[in-house]
Amino acid sequence: MLIPIGDDVSAHSIGNGKIAVLKTDMLVDKTDVPQGMSLWQAARKAVVMNISDFAAKGVRPLAILVSLGLPRRLTEKDIKEIGEGLNAGAREYGAYVIGGDTNEASDFVISISLFGIAKKEKVMLRSGAKPGDIVAVTGFFGKTAAGMKVLLENFEAPKEILNVLVDSVLMPKVRLKEGLSLCQTGAVTASIDSSDGLAWSLYEISKASKVGFLIDRLPIAEEAEKFAKIHNLDPFDLTFYGGEEYELVLTLKTELWGKAEKAVKRIGGKLLPIGKVTAKRQILFEVNGEKRVIEPRGWEHFK
Amino acid sequence: MLIPIGDDVSAHSIGNGKIAVLKTDMLVDKTDVPQGMSLWQAARKAVVMNISDFAAKGVRPLAILVSLGLPRRLTEKDIKEIGEGLNAGAREYGAYVIGGDTNEASDFVISISLFGIAKKEKVMLRSGAKPGDIVAVTGFFGKTAAGMKVLLENFEAPKEILNVLVDSVLMPKVRLKEGLSLCQTGAVTASIDSSDGLAWSLYEISKASKVGFLIDRLPIAEEAEKFAKIHNLDPFDLTFYGGEEYELVLTLKTELWGKAEKAVKRIGGKLLPIGKVTAKRQILFEVNGEKRVIEPRGWEHFK
Repeated sequence: MLIPIGDDVSAHSIGNGKIAVLKTDMLVDKTDVPQGMSLWQAARKAVVMNISDFAAKGVRPLAILVSLGLPRRLTEKDIKEIGEGLNAGAREYGAYVIGGDTNEASDFVISISLFGIAKKEKVMLRSGAKPGDIVAVTGFFGKTAAGMKVLLENFEAPKEILNVLVDSVLMPKVRLKEGLSLCQTGAVTASIDSSDGLAWSLYEISKASKVGFLIDRLPIAEEAEKFAKIHNLDPFDLTFYGGEEYELVLTLKTELWGKAEKAVKRIGGKLLPIGKVTAKRQILFEVNGEKRVIEPRGWEHFK
Repeated sequence: MLIPIGDDVSAHSIGNGKIAVLKTDMLVDKTDVPQGMSLWQAARKAVVMNISDFAAKGVRPLAILVSLGLPRRLTEKDIKEIGEGLNAGAREYGAYVIGGDTNEASDFVISISLFGIAKKEKVMLRSGAKPGDIVAVTGFFGKTAAGMKVLLENFEAPKEILNVLVDSVLMPKVRLKEGLSLCQTGAVTASIDSSDGLAWSLYEISKASKVGFLIDRLPIAEEAEKFAKIHNLDPFDLTFYGGEEYELVLTLKTELWGKAEKAVKRIGGKLLPIGKVTAKRQILFEVNGEKRVIEPRGWEHFK
């Protein structure tokens, strides 16, 4: 196997140590498109959520295929909007939609396939984390969990944070530049995106790399912290058990940490250390003497 | 553009004159899976209908990604059956399912993506037919149109032809060996499969190549002819306006006809000349003095 089964992408050798990297993922409106998200945004999201997996592997997306399932209720204008959202998502990350097809379906369905080329040994897998490695993330968490509560459960949020929370759901950004530049450093031993929640991502690396984690910092976004305070929510839950959040979750060699940090800064990104890889296969959180177990809970698609 | 928009596959250059060939197509149960077709057969069909487009382009399918939309009513056993059907379709034509994802959906949806590698100048397009070229097909038509009438409209068929007709719908075979070997001869100037019906395929080549056709032979299958006689159906309609039939429809240089015919025979296939390419952009049928216009009608998905 060029890339282990269960990792985020698949591969086929094209010779000279290079591989074609392939990935498919489907967006289905009733489980992936929250109330308040436009067709344009849904189409863009379908593309960028796939690109996020390429980002986590350090692979540049080159070409995108789109297969659409369209309910009869959609108008020509709707379909144009969908096409524009697909292209916007692709162009935002330097890729092109090069083909696809349309079908009639009961749900609004967008199936995306990505294609890229990589050097086989460069791809960042889930499976290389070693005890002692630094655990890091590319940004702060909790905004989408809060944003979902606003969109789906009518939670209120003060004006100064409302847009940030809602936009994190409707217009997710993915960490392609971070993934590509980190890939070049050789510092990364394991990598995954956080689309199913930070806790879930840690469990996936734990499973693939046969390691545990001691997390010593809560990487919560300021706006999520404010939201938690207002609604008396646990910041820990917002941070670890959210989802549809497209940060990278990485483990890195300590001796190359400086190089990695510099590379990410150079492209305008962040690399936040949040803990260490442990040999013991448990995932613990310990900050200021407060110890908690991070549970293998993830993002559950809403209905 | 490496391959013109609107052709059956898309491409991305991978250097050295080679291209990655990509294709996606979605099967949706309510429009693509007739009554009487098992989940295993539907899954196999989803794969082979995509492979048929690669066959028409002369490209070997190497890797397959599958994105599934699964209604809640499906059991674990059903899903296993689907997986086996997907693999069976892939292995039948030498390809591998290398990745995919599953989602919940209202319809049973199978979105397939194919990947292959080809030399850019070797790919058989829709757009190269020239007046004087020979039009040919890789087999006889009408069995699926008759088989659909049996499955969907309760038409009866005598025992000796029933299985052939029904199997042509439930277990479609595609002409990969024919496409690959014809591609090597350099004889083919345009190519498409007949999944939307023979008439429709001729119109697609006509549009892309800016030519017309004079068809002088009715390539009807023996079993379809029998079925037409019993039910007083027009053999012409069964042949030209069927669909879900995966023959190749090709135009070939007259001077390389012998080479092409030999190449197809060598792999155990057939190449039937059915007419000529004309400069005048009309599609006519003339056999024994009987003249008819072939209309731009195609296969309509049933509901």
